[in-house]
Amino acid sequence: MVNFTIDKNKNTPLYIQIFNQFKKYIENGSIPQGYKLPTIRSLAKELGVNNITVINAYKLLELNGYVNKKVGSGTYVSQDIKQNDLTREDIKALEHGQILLNKNMINFSSSSPNPELFPVDDFKIIINKVLERDGGYAFEYQDTKGYMPFRKSICEFIKKDEIDIDYEDVQVISGGQQGIDVVSKALINFGDCVFVESPTYSWAIASFKSRGAEIVDIALNKDGIDIDELEEKLKIFKPKLIYTMPVFQNPTGISYSEDKLKKLIDLAYKYDTYIVEDDFSNELNFSSNKHLPLKSYDKYDRVIYIKSFSKIYMPGLRLGFIVSPKNLVNSFAEAKYVSDLSTSGLMQRAFEIYLREGIWKKHIERFKKIMRERFDEMKYLLSGNKYFEVNIPDGGFYFWLKLNDDISAKKLYLKCIERNVSIVPGNMFFSNKVDDSHIRLSYASCEADKMKSGISTLNDILKDIHNEENSEYIPIV
Amino acid sequence: MVNFTIDKNKNTPLYIQIFNQFKKYIENGSIPQGYKLPTIRSLAKELGVNNITVINAYKLLELNGYVNKKVGSGTYVSQDIKQNDLTREDIKALEHGQILLNKNMINFSSSSPNPELFPVDDFKIIINKVLERDGGYAFEYQDTKGYMPFRKSICEFIKKDEIDIDYEDVQVISGGQQGIDVVSKALINFGDCVFVESPTYSWAIASFKSRGAEIVDIALNKDGIDIDELEEKLKIFKPKLIYTMPVFQNPTGISYSEDKLKKLIDLAYKYDTYIVEDDFSNELNFSSNKHLPLKSYDKYDRVIYIKSFSKIYMPGLRLGFIVSPKNLVNSFAEAKYVSDLSTSGLMQRAFEIYLREGIWKKHIERFKKIMRERFDEMKYLLSGNKYFEVNIPDGGFYFWLKLNDDISAKKLYLKCIERNVSIVPGNMFFSNKVDDSHIRLSYASCEADKMKSGISTLNDILKDIHNEENSEYIPIV
Repeated sequence: MVNFTIDKNKNTPLYIQIFNQFKKYIENGSIPQGYKLPTIRSLAKELGVNNITVINAYKLLELNGYVNKKVGSGTYVSQDIKQNDLTREDIKALEHGQILLNKNMINFSSSSPNPELFPVDDFKIIINKVLERDGGYAFEYQDTKGYMPFRKSICEFIKKDEIDIDYEDVQVISGGQQGIDVVSKALINFGDCVFVESPTYSWAIASFKSRGAEIVDIALNKDGIDIDELEEKLKIFKPKLIYTMPVFQNPTGISYSEDKLKKLIDLAYKYDTYIVEDDFSNELNFSSNKHLPLKSYDKYDRVIYIKSFSKIYMPGLRLGFIVSPKNLVNSFAEAKYVSDLSTSGLMQRAFEIYLREGIWKKHIERFKKIMRERFDEMKYLLSGNKYFEVNIPDGGFYFWLKLNDDISAKKLYLKCIERNVSIVPGNMFFSNKVDDSHIRLSYASCEADKMKSGISTLNDILKDIHNEENSEYIPIV
Repeated sequence: MVNFTIDKNKNTPLYIQIFNQFKKYIENGSIPQGYKLPTIRSLAKELGVNNITVINAYKLLELNGYVNKKVGSGTYVSQDIKQNDLTREDIKALEHGQILLNKNMINFSSSSPNPELFPVDDFKIIINKVLERDGGYAFEYQDTKGYMPFRKSICEFIKKDEIDIDYEDVQVISGGQQGIDVVSKALINFGDCVFVESPTYSWAIASFKSRGAEIVDIALNKDGIDIDELEEKLKIFKPKLIYTMPVFQNPTGISYSEDKLKKLIDLAYKYDTYIVEDDFSNELNFSSNKHLPLKSYDKYDRVIYIKSFSKIYMPGLRLGFIVSPKNLVNSFAEAKYVSDLSTSGLMQRAFEIYLREGIWKKHIERFKKIMRERFDEMKYLLSGNKYFEVNIPDGGFYFWLKLNDDISAKKLYLKCIERNVSIVPGNMFFSNKVDDSHIRLSYASCEADKMKSGISTLNDILKDIHNEENSEYIPIV
């Protein structure tokens, strides 16, 4: 059925080689759910390794949720391991509202605000200013690291988040996804290990996997990543990086406590790895709790901070930046060059003015006011519901719902679509686990006046499914 | 000194595994120039393989220029194998004129035209038209494959090159380099083989290598790629793709004959591989010879056509497109999504108008006239020179000079810089060979009135070097 090969000359310990191969075969379905693994002795003999090597590999598989041990019976592949992805098209559609949502659709799926909220008028003026001032030079190749005045204005801009850096540490990118891709190119080689929060943003995983990385999940608690699990796994694997969204996480809305932020940085230092911080919405804090970026605590220069301007300003800018640890600046520049040479000069020059002249503050004020209304309305509408539990975030765009009574998220999703409500089923945020009990609701693209009707429909459907499920199981006696 | 491992379970033939490892060690300098390889018998014994396996591996190394056989003595690593790259910073600087060339510098190095030639005024009008018409929608995420009206206008546009396709085959990209990167992501996995012309564009190689590809060179003759060498190597390796620039190649200016274009496509079909055609300047034909893109001959749907708008229109657009074989359309879309989600909507919408309304024709006419003057002047200035041979291209931006009398290209390059003339030494266009006898001159950024003085300086320096070299070797008797 499957073929195991181990290479004793490799640096990777043998038990991790065995673990990686099981992982691959389980994920791609070559080893099906419920399959009983070979006994320790037989596999050890077949591979010519010690029993303890196989024992350690099986322990790792268990630790990562791939297998369950049944006492006295053996080790079995988990029934809830993910073996088939949702199609990529679905994910794309849901993440960015790229499917033509019909006009009457109530949109709880898009991560980006409706275009009516974009600061287009200001931009029109600024773009013309740039064209007037710079002419053809706005359309030349720009420095790969970014247009220097723009990099300088970024340094001023992020002082608001208590991040104090030199423009030499700034790498301009064409949006957050390119940031992830550039970091992947620079740091990840075939066979490297990457840690991610579970659940997390699926297209970050796609980028790491595209470089041949092995993905290891770390559970997310209500106050951030599970530090104990993280350290336990750091001792075993040697990840090239830990991918995180410490503020208003996608999809859970969770923010790390200050204590966890500090511990995370200490662990990165202790185990000699890097943390990628993906920040797309830290401006949207609706609580009285301070939520500074992880980067502002980065005393060991271990945080690669990726900032996107897409969600809070406009996706179409295709702009963002990386704040890089000193020793990675040139690697990121080279990766950026290989990717697309440089980012649009026109947009960099326009956004430079936007930042330098403080025009962004006006937009944020207005934007935050509108989002605050939506946030409060969502919070109100989602409270005290018996069909799900919801974790109220301190800000950002996302509410993450855990469905009660075994209600199927997939069924809910499909029925919502029928009734013109679009939501995101939780399954797509898990890298290797099947999840059918969570959904993500975003209000980025949903006006406050539509929410009531949307959540009311959601409730009707939940009630129907709940009743259906219960009636199905009433025994006829 | 080095470690060889071979894996008999792998699909790759053993002699190719051995070849690949020698190649790696020779390229990274672990096995130095002039080193004598182990005898066939001793290596075969050490690796536990047949003599014939080692013989085949050594033959391959010889075929690819890594080693020379000396009869009765053994096999030695070539003296002219490339073991140290020029620094990446140098290459970047030279390719795109990103170093701050001092104002008085005569620029024969840049590949992109001076900004004074960009159609900025037309674009200013069009951008405002788009902002007026589409408002915030111009700044939304666009479809990953591209803004549909733009894709449709591209289909009309390339009918000029006798390429007739459906908009479904078009993938919009943010410039030619991203096209290469997207194709690499979609097709190349760690250990795959890629064929390139020798010499070729170094940042294509960087992209392939970043995916873990093994690069194999194919010589370029005056009428295109060496078809016999290509077929010989196709029989041995199974390349994922063959990267080519069939019209006005970078750096040589060479264009393929129609016969070679057809043969290339037949070979791709016969050996089940793809050809990447990188086209950045086919509009600049100054001859009466027809130079249609390879894609227009693509009867087997084997050509991945990458078109950049950077060199002929404006680099700052960050726009281009891939015409994809039907079966690769979705792979490219996924790779594009992982790379940066989508390309700027504003630029796509603006260029859609530019193409649809035929405004590009006006620009090309003016642009071609100016480039023609420069081309003719260069041709005149470079003719009948005793220090180099030059191949006069049919169009494009590049003249490729072969220096006579062992004049060192590197020395020439350094002396030119001192005298405020910038040229590109040929070395950077070879993936594994040291070259010190070619230079590339581009007139993209060099006004006709500066050329005379630039070439005259070049000639002075050539004369000096030539005299120096000769005087050094006069024996004192």
